[in-house]
Amino acid sequence: MNKEVIGKRIKAIRRELNKKRISCLIITKPANVTYTTGFMGDDSWAMITEKQVYFLTDSRYTEQAQKECVGCKIVERGDSMAEALAQLIKRLKSIRTITVENSTSLASFEALKKHVKTRFRTASGVIETVRSVKDSGEIAAIKTAASISAQALKEIRKFMKPGVTEIELAGMLDFQFRKLGATNGFPTIIAFGANASRPHHQPSARKLKKKDTVLIDFGARYKGYCSDITRCFVCSESILPLSPARAGRPRHTASPRLNAFYKKVYDVVEQAQAAAIKMIKAGVKLKQVDAAAREVIAKSGFPVYGHGTGHGFGLEIHEVPFLKPEGKGELKAGQVLTIEPGIYIPGKIGVRIEDDCLVTKTGCTILTKMCPH
Amino acid sequence: MNKEVIGKRIKAIRRELNKKRISCLIITKPANVTYTTGFMGDDSWAMITEKQVYFLTDSRYTEQAQKECVGCKIVERGDSMAEALAQLIKRLKSIRTITVENSTSLASFEALKKHVKTRFRTASGVIETVRSVKDSGEIAAIKTAASISAQALKEIRKFMKPGVTEIELAGMLDFQFRKLGATNGFPTIIAFGANASRPHHQPSARKLKKKDTVLIDFGARYKGYCSDITRCFVCSESILPLSPARAGRPRHTASPRLNAFYKKVYDVVEQAQAAAIKMIKAGVKLKQVDAAAREVIAKSGFPVYGHGTGHGFGLEIHEVPFLKPEGKGELKAGQVLTIEPGIYIPGKIGVRIEDDCLVTKTGCTILTKMCPH
Repeated sequence: MNKEVIGKRIKAIRRELNKKRISCLIITKPANVTYTTGFMGDDSWAMITEKQVYFLTDSRYTEQAQKECVGCKIVERGDSMAEALAQLIKRLKSIRTITVENSTSLASFEALKKHVKTRFRTASGVIETVRSVKDSGEIAAIKTAASISAQALKEIRKFMKPGVTEIELAGMLDFQFRKLGATNGFPTIIAFGANASRPHHQPSARKLKKKDTVLIDFGARYKGYCSDITRCFVCSESILPLSPARAGRPRHTASPRLNAFYKKVYDVVEQAQAAAIKMIKAGVKLKQVDAAAREVIAKSGFPVYGHGTGHGFGLEIHEVPFLKPEGKGELKAGQVLTIEPGIYIPGKIGVRIEDDCLVTKTGCTILTKMCPH
Repeated sequence: MNKEVIGKRIKAIRRELNKKRISCLIITKPANVTYTTGFMGDDSWAMITEKQVYFLTDSRYTEQAQKECVGCKIVERGDSMAEALAQLIKRLKSIRTITVENSTSLASFEALKKHVKTRFRTASGVIETVRSVKDSGEIAAIKTAASISAQALKEIRKFMKPGVTEIELAGMLDFQFRKLGATNGFPTIIAFGANASRPHHQPSARKLKKKDTVLIDFGARYKGYCSDITRCFVCSESILPLSPARAGRPRHTASPRLNAFYKKVYDVVEQAQAAAIKMIKAGVKLKQVDAAAREVIAKSGFPVYGHGTGHGFGLEIHEVPFLKPEGKGELKAGQVLTIEPGIYIPGKIGVRIEDDCLVTKTGCTILTKMCPH
């Protein structure tokens, strides 16, 4: 990791810590540890004070940490994490109050309280708030992840034939991620026909039939960063026509045999998505963006989806900001988030369209344009 | 999930709760929720009292829960988990003290304390202790997972040729899991040459060379249950001879060109593993099993591995019992665990052999025999 990039992040984190009057934060959430230190492995914590960032790991990861962590002091622990922290804090002398991320487990917190004799506080969302605004390296990684996702989807189109199962297709997609130098950002969702009415459907042994609908919610992870895309198709022919020339046009328009009801539902979802995307701009309220999509669907008479309209993502697949009716706060330039309204009629139909958007001062840039609808 | 099976589990959990004088336990760890209720989805909690098991989920999962959860009352929450629990507990009236699993996050615990006005305690390892002894259905799932793993490894042997990358091979293996109706139990580790000296190496773009060594640490997950196997090979020819007829014989004996040093290291690891497996029997101390393997390596003069000799597994990839020098307790009949000693010389060599063993009253059954060394 670049020293300058990490330096900027630490500065931004310290600003946030000052606002909340936190002088020493123990960072236990893996994505937050990665963000603060550059470390890409597991089972490690970080501690940030006014003067220093400490990275605590065990012997399995010391070699890796020496390569990846450029802006911090590496502490190789022999004992438990709590004991190693106790020793470090004893050595530093000046620490009176320790703040712990509230994503930490009770077990870890209890162990800390047992070994470290200071005052304790908990805090939520400190690093997450900073992380929500992406730097240029992060945006580049997300763009590459999106472009790998689009490429992977293109590669598997020849297997989208009647007879293939949801599981097989998911496996093929995941394999393409690997071949393209990425991994899965999250477990791939592939749902044929009415299975798509469950937003979190797990791929099953259900076979694709002629005229079946296909929902694919997928995203590669590249250099730690996710993408998150949903596309819907209709298996109108033995092989789906998915030519790049048709990028941006809803896939089903290519099929004269398309079920009219599906087309109607798809159009409403597309309009809902467009309405939300149009709202995106730094300073706009989260719930306004959410409402924009929800209103289009409500007006259409179709049932309004139970999930959020979108969410931030990056090192984690779900990050702040969350676009929900009860969402508080405003969009900031540099945030990257999904817009993913859907219509679900149990046992009948499920349509969701999801794209990734970068918030700018004047509007937004869609990062998933290379992945045709 | 079978009602009788769940009934037995709940009985065993209640015995454990009685021992620890817990009258009401809130279960938040996903694997523990699955074990107690049969639910295979996410984002749900369970609560077990002396009379009833409650399952709390949201509208996304109600349909799935009605199918999967046979022994409990399903509560569909509209509000947050903490608020839903507060309402439930208010309705039940009789609950004076609530015990929360200590794997729960501080954030969830703080939310609970805000909404639920009772006394709180925390507890560790209640469900984990019960889960460590597997029932026949669980053992059958683990056996199938192991057999799918062996089959997947066999399928990818034709791709183990000079030029293939670690990432590609990992992708192919994972794809085979899918094709065979399973998923990954954990991220596949594939390490060529000296990369194997890092026990937690992540597959890279490193290409396989002639005479290279290959370490594969992998395992399918079937019906929620993992397997966990490590095998080492030498790329002595363009295609590795991996015929089932050679099952049980170390792979490298097939190669006359094998590097003598690698063979020596491999033999010591194999002896260490055999020594530990020989020790396994219900009632034997965990640290005795750990020591058996460690002693063989110490005597050989090679460096002794920094990780444990083995660990239980099932719904999670790492479960009690943990075979470590400081491990407390004894093996119980019905536990399933790995035995995986290794020798690691940084920048030079890494060898680990890992098999899955079922503890019995008189010894152990190796569940991974179908996967040749």
